[in-house]
Amino acid sequence: MIVPGFRAAAASAGIKKGQQPDLALITAIRPAAAAGVFTTNRVKAAPVVISRERLRSGRAQALLVNSGNANACTGAQGLEAAWEASHWIARYLNIPDRLVLPASTGVIGQKLPTGKILAALPDLVTRLDPEGLSEVAQAIMTTDTFAKTAQIDGHIGDHPLTVAGIAKGAGMIHPRMATLLAFIFTDAAISPSLLKTYLKAGLAQSFNRISVDGDTSTNDTVIVMASGQARNQLLDRPDSAAGQDFATLLHQVMADLAVQIVRDGEGAQRCYRVIVDGAVNAVEARKAAATVATSPLVKTAVTGADANWGRIMAALGRSGARFDPEQVDIFFGPHQVVRNGQAIGPAAELDFGDLPELKDPLLKDSPLEDLCALYIARLQNLLDEARLYFIGEKV
Amino acid sequence: MIVPGFRAAAASAGIKKGQQPDLALITAIRPAAAAGVFTTNRVKAAPVVISRERLRSGRAQALLVNSGNANACTGAQGLEAAWEASHWIARYLNIPDRLVLPASTGVIGQKLPTGKILAALPDLVTRLDPEGLSEVAQAIMTTDTFAKTAQIDGHIGDHPLTVAGIAKGAGMIHPRMATLLAFIFTDAAISPSLLKTYLKAGLAQSFNRISVDGDTSTNDTVIVMASGQARNQLLDRPDSAAGQDFATLLHQVMADLAVQIVRDGEGAQRCYRVIVDGAVNAVEARKAAATVATSPLVKTAVTGADANWGRIMAALGRSGARFDPEQVDIFFGPHQVVRNGQAIGPAAELDFGDLPELKDPLLKDSPLEDLCALYIARLQNLLDEARLYFIGEKV
Repeated sequence: MIVPGFRAAAASAGIKKGQQPDLALITAIRPAAAAGVFTTNRVKAAPVVISRERLRSGRAQALLVNSGNANACTGAQGLEAAWEASHWIARYLNIPDRLVLPASTGVIGQKLPTGKILAALPDLVTRLDPEGLSEVAQAIMTTDTFAKTAQIDGHIGDHPLTVAGIAKGAGMIHPRMATLLAFIFTDAAISPSLLKTYLKAGLAQSFNRISVDGDTSTNDTVIVMASGQARNQLLDRPDSAAGQDFATLLHQVMADLAVQIVRDGEGAQRCYRVIVDGAVNAVEARKAAATVATSPLVKTAVTGADANWGRIMAALGRSGARFDPEQVDIFFGPHQVVRNGQAIGPAAELDFGDLPELKDPLLKDSPLEDLCALYIARLQNLLDEARLYFIGEKV
Repeated sequence: MIVPGFRAAAASAGIKKGQQPDLALITAIRPAAAAGVFTTNRVKAAPVVISRERLRSGRAQALLVNSGNANACTGAQGLEAAWEASHWIARYLNIPDRLVLPASTGVIGQKLPTGKILAALPDLVTRLDPEGLSEVAQAIMTTDTFAKTAQIDGHIGDHPLTVAGIAKGAGMIHPRMATLLAFIFTDAAISPSLLKTYLKAGLAQSFNRISVDGDTSTNDTVIVMASGQARNQLLDRPDSAAGQDFATLLHQVMADLAVQIVRDGEGAQRCYRVIVDGAVNAVEARKAAATVATSPLVKTAVTGADANWGRIMAALGRSGARFDPEQVDIFFGPHQVVRNGQAIGPAAELDFGDLPELKDPLLKDSPLEDLCALYIARLQNLLDEARLYFIGEKV
């Protein structure tokens, strides 16, 4: 996993118990275009406060990430700790403090062990390596059971181009900029403002459509950095063909990471996708899809491999979306179980276990298509432009 | 369990498998003042549609309730089935159809077995008995593990007065008029409009503050009927002392039933109450309390007897309530764990298991006070009129 212009390394600083890696550094060879989106939670961890402020410049050169401690609810002391760690990294790298972005994940409310972090920094800098990103994906794990990485090699016109990302999830996963940590790197040459535009558009299609437990974290952070090493003509207009090509790659990487986060949700046994068709508008489609995807009773039915469509109807009914209950169709994958709001024969009694395409448990090496029990709620007689999906997950 | 003016009976009509009682009838000796509140779910079961319409008159004389089949998502056929059953009860009782209120609970989407119900009606009418209400509480159970009943004998001035209620819950429990079924009976003489006023006020303090799984049902129904047998002076002004006395009794019965529903939530292991103090206003207090109470991560922490206050902070932070994270105090029962947004020493590491007043599992014969793990989030430096509680439950 190599993105031209970036180097990375991970180390075990002793923040977590045992010898697991828990500290990571990613650097760009020169200040990179950078954009970030952060938690909407009113309680924001210290590194979120700092990185959000520093990203106003649109430039960053280093990411310093620790796991094992969220540095959240730690007050002024927490801010000092994050400032101090990023200050020392800036000194080692000989760059301004403001180009260092701190990020943390782990337990809320404990003081960041600054001493341990500072002690580990010199070694981390020495070991920076173009192939270090995979190690970083390991180091940022908390309750994750596998490291989350995604990479696409594509082109902008004739220029080869790479977009690669790493993420950590597991708990506190819900749309509203909640995804814990995701860092995406590319060698594209792109303006910071356009990078932010594409990041936000991608979020709406990826991290903002997944849910595991319905909670959001104090530390949620998605940062994208672009080194410019691909030496393509600078992307700075959203509608250009080259810009669109780049956006497609970026969004594919984000969607890949988002689905991996769902698949590895804490306690998750099954992964499913809800598609709502024919809603009055996109807002109502989203309400309907989100309510079905996150309904605890729908989740337990899915986990029990029980095609309990009555729970889907009940969830749609409380979603706030406008529809006529007597014009709803419901499908499990290719199997229709409800027509015009009523069960259709024995199909409505099906067991997930009878459906090879739906019965697979959540295995991380299965193809994604096999993992997603597809729910379709077709709200008939309404406009059908609005088609939204939502990925939910058994807690 | 006797309320003057009412008789009741239950029978096994074969709607449920086995020989369990699944059909019940409650009648008033003459048309009673009656008020109801029904599900806000857009998908409404047939009996909800009919009873809501019939209650516009403010009078009712019979309640016909079945369990085992919700008669929801059953279209025109479902309405016919509910009409037919209530029509035959009206004939047997020699009262107008419009004074019969049907109610159903059970599986969604299956046709109501009208034949079985009609066959059981004559026997049900014959067996009507002033002491039959307890049997009815049994007959309306679905996944409930115990029957829910509450009774208070009080006074309005010198007139002795009874308020008694029965309920069924277990799944699909969430505020927004979601409580599945609750039926409350009193011998007070009260106008239908004042009965409705007090019913709504009571809901806001009871059924609309409980949550088990966050879902709402297609069949949620709370009905209160007043026979007038107490022969008190007719209550028809909300502010009269006699009216207030009655409202207090009614609300106590409703709160008692609401907590019983939480205690018997499907899969529930622990019951807790969230109190928010010092919010900007009641709306924000409610947001904060509801978000903490229903957070899956808070629920899992409570179930694991882990005083994970970071999850409470994170839930407060995404609740939408306005507050300063650095001025939050958090208590578990009498134990303060957070002051000004930060952990206070070893108390913040406490284990529920160490706290006798918090560690009791959900035992239905323990006093309620012992069952409720008390969470207090004090949002400081704000007005302190707004104090809201919310009862949540592990799914």
